[in-house]
Amino acid sequence: MYDFSPIGFVETAETKVPRHWSISDVKGRLVLDKAYEKGLCDIKPGDRIIVLFVFHKSQAFEENLLVQKPPHKNRQMGVFSICSPIRPNPIGLSVLTVDKVEKNIISVTGIDMFDGTPIIDIKPFITPEPD
Amino acid sequence: MYDFSPIGFVETAETKVPRHWSISDVKGRLVLDKAYEKGLCDIKPGDRIIVLFVFHKSQAFEENLLVQKPPHKNRQMGVFSICSPIRPNPIGLSVLTVDKVEKNIISVTGIDMFDGTPIIDIKPFITPEPD
Repeated sequence: MYDFSPIGFVETAETKVPRHWSISDVKGRLVLDKAYEKGLCDIKPGDRIIVLFVFHKSQAFEENLLVQKPPHKNRQMGVFSICSPIRPNPIGLSVLTVDKVEKNIISVTGIDMFDGTPIIDIKPFITPEPD
Repeated sequence: MYDFSPIGFVETAETKVPRHWSISDVKGRLVLDKAYEKGLCDIKPGDRIIVLFVFHKSQAFEENLLVQKPPHKNRQMGVFSICSPIRPNPIGLSVLTVDKVEKNIISVTGIDMFDGTPIIDIKPFITPEPD
């Protein structure tokens, strides 16, 4: 068992978020704990960042959810091939575009999380082919 | 605080793993708990998958590590812009290529984790531009 604490929370005024970041132009803010501000020093407007977060409103995972029908597909699929928020460890991943960084707050576009979502990590977005 | 349990573990015979999956051709296996086998049903050879795991051998994070010098860079960078295993929540992300799926075991190429690394999630690799 591993314990992770939020490093911050998502803020967005949008109450109906799209099902996936790849089709989202919703804006919002990643408000980090002030203790982590210095760790944001190399994040710049225009960057794509990977945000790992907790699906904190999802129901508990159960065995019958190992396959699920995604809303935009016409068949059941294995949970590890889909982005369902109901999964063995309820961790979400979104690739967001940075609009602005001010102190401990990153303004972003591409939000597909609810307001109040706990953030557990931010990473650079790196494509499979090395530079 | 959120608790996550491993869904499986990385197996690799390689003892010196590259610093990043994007420059790795190391092979290995993702051995999932048998309870999750059904969730792998849509993972196919040739697929790229995102594997989230725990940097279980990393030292505890400390404030002075908010900026770190990556081994292949000549300057200090913010922890949220680099892939260092020493981070506030020690979660790693690798994009691996699937060679084979047999029951609860995925054979992969691109390993940059140590043998025995706890896996906490597997997700489809989706590029920023929607299909």
